[in-house]
Amino acid sequence: MDQRLSLITIGVPDLAAARDFYVTGLGWTPVLDVAGAVTFLQVAPGVLLSLYDAAELAADIGPDRAPATTVGNVTLAHNVGSEQEVDAVLEDAARAGATILKTPQRAVWGGYHGYFADPAGMPWEVAHNPGWSVGADGTVTMG
Amino acid sequence: MDQRLSLITIGVPDLAAARDFYVTGLGWTPVLDVAGAVTFLQVAPGVLLSLYDAAELAADIGPDRAPATTVGNVTLAHNVGSEQEVDAVLEDAARAGATILKTPQRAVWGGYHGYFADPAGMPWEVAHNPGWSVGADGTVTMG
Repeated sequence: MDQRLSLITIGVPDLAAARDFYVTGLGWTPVLDVAGAVTFLQVAPGVLLSLYDAAELAADIGPDRAPATTVGNVTLAHNVGSEQEVDAVLEDAARAGATILKTPQRAVWGGYHGYFADPAGMPWEVAHNPGWSVGADGTVTMG
Repeated sequence: MDQRLSLITIGVPDLAAARDFYVTGLGWTPVLDVAGAVTFLQVAPGVLLSLYDAAELAADIGPDRAPATTVGNVTLAHNVGSEQEVDAVLEDAARAGATILKTPQRAVWGGYHGYFADPAGMPWEVAHNPGWSVGADGTVTMG
């Protein structure tokens, strides 16, 4: 199995609310947007984020799989270039309808960060990590 | 907020088991690997997958946040170029210690897929989607 991610799917309790947050609120552009069914958003080279009904997602895995009641032990992160941008992105997200889980503050790992939750409860960390850099070919180096 | 993902973190109940699956089992190479603390793996240009203790992840969001007991309503997907590769990747994953959740089969959306769970219970879909293509610049098109 190659070291490659193609898609992240969030199983959401309210598809319209999730779509509204990302597309209308944050202004993100869908790659494919099927009303009432699924919305795909490109979030990295070769990688889409999919918003899909939680019960349909569970059923796709198997007929006996119950939908989880929460997002669970997963977080997404959005890195930015400065502490000011962390503040600004969290304000943007709040205006778009996000719930602020952690106000922007110094992080124990040496950077600066905060968290918001999207309407489905998915936590997004917004972070400035001075030790994180992405090369021209997309290679990430840390530390 | 730009349309960009930097990091996905899986909060795992057993960090050693999670690391062993991805690094030893699947043979993936860490960008940064701190024994007993965190493992970062590059999974797309500019994007890392992080394996981190579930309780530490909850504490990072806030002191009042209880760790979730399951991965929840999120799946990751790994797209491949043929149905044969779907079969082979699921066999690889099983040999590395994954639990097969859905054996390879025709998918309702016209492709071919199966699911496995990593040791923390994170579902990975392994899929061949004939309608999915990635351009030289990383742009995904569907349908």
